[in-house]
Amino acid sequence: MSWIDDPAFAEDKPFGPQTLPYGVVETANGPTVAVRVGDHALPLRPIADEFTAELAELVTARSLDPLLAAGRPAWSSLRARLVELVRSPAAPEGAVLVPLSETRALLPFTVGDYVDFYSSRHHAENVGRIFRPDQAPLLPNWTHLPVGYHGRSGTIVVSGTDVERPYGQRKTDDGPVFGPSVRLDIEAEIGFVCGGPVARRVSTSAAADHVFGVVTVNDWSARDIQAWEYVPLGPHLGKSFATSVGAWITPLEAFAAARVPVPDPGHPRLDYLVEDVHWGLDIHLEVFWNGTLVSKPDFAGMSYSFAQQLAHMTVNGATVRPGDFFASGTVSGPDKHQRGSFLELSWGGKESVELDGGEQRTFLADGDTVVITATAPGPDGSVIGLAEVAGTIRAAGD
Amino acid sequence: MSWIDDPAFAEDKPFGPQTLPYGVVETANGPTVAVRVGDHALPLRPIADEFTAELAELVTARSLDPLLAAGRPAWSSLRARLVELVRSPAAPEGAVLVPLSETRALLPFTVGDYVDFYSSRHHAENVGRIFRPDQAPLLPNWTHLPVGYHGRSGTIVVSGTDVERPYGQRKTDDGPVFGPSVRLDIEAEIGFVCGGPVARRVSTSAAADHVFGVVTVNDWSARDIQAWEYVPLGPHLGKSFATSVGAWITPLEAFAAARVPVPDPGHPRLDYLVEDVHWGLDIHLEVFWNGTLVSKPDFAGMSYSFAQQLAHMTVNGATVRPGDFFASGTVSGPDKHQRGSFLELSWGGKESVELDGGEQRTFLADGDTVVITATAPGPDGSVIGLAEVAGTIRAAGD
Repeated sequence: MSWIDDPAFAEDKPFGPQTLPYGVVETANGPTVAVRVGDHALPLRPIADEFTAELAELVTARSLDPLLAAGRPAWSSLRARLVELVRSPAAPEGAVLVPLSETRALLPFTVGDYVDFYSSRHHAENVGRIFRPDQAPLLPNWTHLPVGYHGRSGTIVVSGTDVERPYGQRKTDDGPVFGPSVRLDIEAEIGFVCGGPVARRVSTSAAADHVFGVVTVNDWSARDIQAWEYVPLGPHLGKSFATSVGAWITPLEAFAAARVPVPDPGHPRLDYLVEDVHWGLDIHLEVFWNGTLVSKPDFAGMSYSFAQQLAHMTVNGATVRPGDFFASGTVSGPDKHQRGSFLELSWGGKESVELDGGEQRTFLADGDTVVITATAPGPDGSVIGLAEVAGTIRAAGD
Repeated sequence: MSWIDDPAFAEDKPFGPQTLPYGVVETANGPTVAVRVGDHALPLRPIADEFTAELAELVTARSLDPLLAAGRPAWSSLRARLVELVRSPAAPEGAVLVPLSETRALLPFTVGDYVDFYSSRHHAENVGRIFRPDQAPLLPNWTHLPVGYHGRSGTIVVSGTDVERPYGQRKTDDGPVFGPSVRLDIEAEIGFVCGGPVARRVSTSAAADHVFGVVTVNDWSARDIQAWEYVPLGPHLGKSFATSVGAWITPLEAFAAARVPVPDPGHPRLDYLVEDVHWGLDIHLEVFWNGTLVSKPDFAGMSYSFAQQLAHMTVNGATVRPGDFFASGTVSGPDKHQRGSFLELSWGGKESVELDGGEQRTFLADGDTVVITATAPGPDGSVIGLAEVAGTIRAAGD
């Protein structure tokens, strides 16, 4: 029986001892590395004496940056020690459990480069049909490489941060006009936080050594701005105003029981994209719009794994550094209730989505709150949690 | 008569006392902030006593990061004091001049987000004609907004760094193949290093307070990789392997006499893109391919100024931070000898470029060296220099 007295800290719950995600919480002594146990944060600085000197240095830092840089052996040692500590009947001396409701979680790491992929075939086909109705929904390169682009790392914000409606240009019959976006959307995604030594040409086999952990992502998107700006160099202002990430990073190690093959592309893969271990992940997402569950996308259907994405991203010789971050792209399934964006759920704004209470919506209204949660199967029938990513839309500012 | 005895330190030379660009050089005591005077570096740490306490703290740092964050008033004070010191007949106590040839210059700042624009109409039209011959060369959005995209900040390297030929997928009639790029190219650009307080919705009038200085840029581009990957989300691996920047950042203040209007777009501009001061810059670039001058692009013809680019980049609410960096896009003029990429000079590889000695080239061969230099008019008939950006192609690695 663990010393942690929290009914949410159980193996059949997302944040039991099988999960142990890392975050950074504000305390009276400043930002502190913590692990989430059930509905509590366990700050690690007060129990630093429980760790080896090497690990103590990592857990007493003010962000996860040193831990990300430390690499896989340190990640495994720390996780093993934490499992012992949270499963122990006796509390470590000095341990303090803080209810999450009394905790302010911070963005837990310094984001280097941010790449957003586009690896759901259903999403890519839906968007193709909506944006380019006169063309084949899937472009010829899509089944051969994980299409992706760089996003703005400086506007990645932690779950709970309000998002101000962006301004921008949108096209009208009388030419472009400027104003607050009128088609503000979400993208439900899964993100991967990089760590370990700086590397280039990371193989699919080595990819797991360069990924510290996994988070939920909401890649807010202004569809009107995006549709006008995106040719020929891709999305820019339609995406760059904000990307929200979950406050707690679930270690990749927690997903051992969630590994699945990625779907076959229907033709041979180029060698560098072949996986010798499966790194598709059986993650189930849920998207709540003002409290109404509007979509349940399954990540297992994604056409490229994070290992393939990382191999692709670095195969040209580009380096990956600790703190670099990449996201899967919108997760959409074949069915309507599995679509991971409101663009798709409303089919370009043509079909409204009914919220509890009967309200009809297409895109986001000021004051709307979106929450995305996710879980995956854990070992021995347990469940692995990915912390929610939540955000509320504020009116466009002055 | 200045104490600096260097014939290149003269007002009719690019690196006289009217220019004074900042860099960071390796010394026995580690990386040191320096200014360039003629063909010498003047490290500032040894003469820190010559500055106020506030400025001394900035010039004794190991990178330009604190100076970038300090903002316009500090930039102006420091420059004014440096002008006094370098024009003085007596050397400051402890001053050491190091010949540039004996100096190793480092990337002088930590790059935050990197945005690459596409603001030369001639370049955009040329690329449109080459890549999309069946369509109008200029897409409809181009004259209404400065099209741009995020690049990879982690692979920005300082002038003099070798560039390894990237690997990637390219299209063939039998489907995509993987290998070293066979159409490796340059893009001659001008880049802008951001500083001052974190800001959003920076107006064109305020933009100069958020730009510390100006550098030459070579945005290396693998055209075969790019052509296959870039739809619909823009360039990724075709660009992300390396972007080279000049080692010395010329302060924006040095360009007061180089300001020119940007060309009229032929229709009214949206308000946020209107300039009340001209921030087009009369910069002249030269591109040398293995020593042969192959192009002389003029920056004055660019359709968007850095002030318009920064206003656009932040108008949606995105923040700009010290260390963020943005580049103009390839600078090409109306004439063939003004094209800023080999894609254009060789018209998609169809026309070869003759180098001194008679060698015929289209794209880059291993061992090739490209040097881009630039100058602008300075006050009273002087000339302002932008330090060269140089890079040599290494064969694709193992």
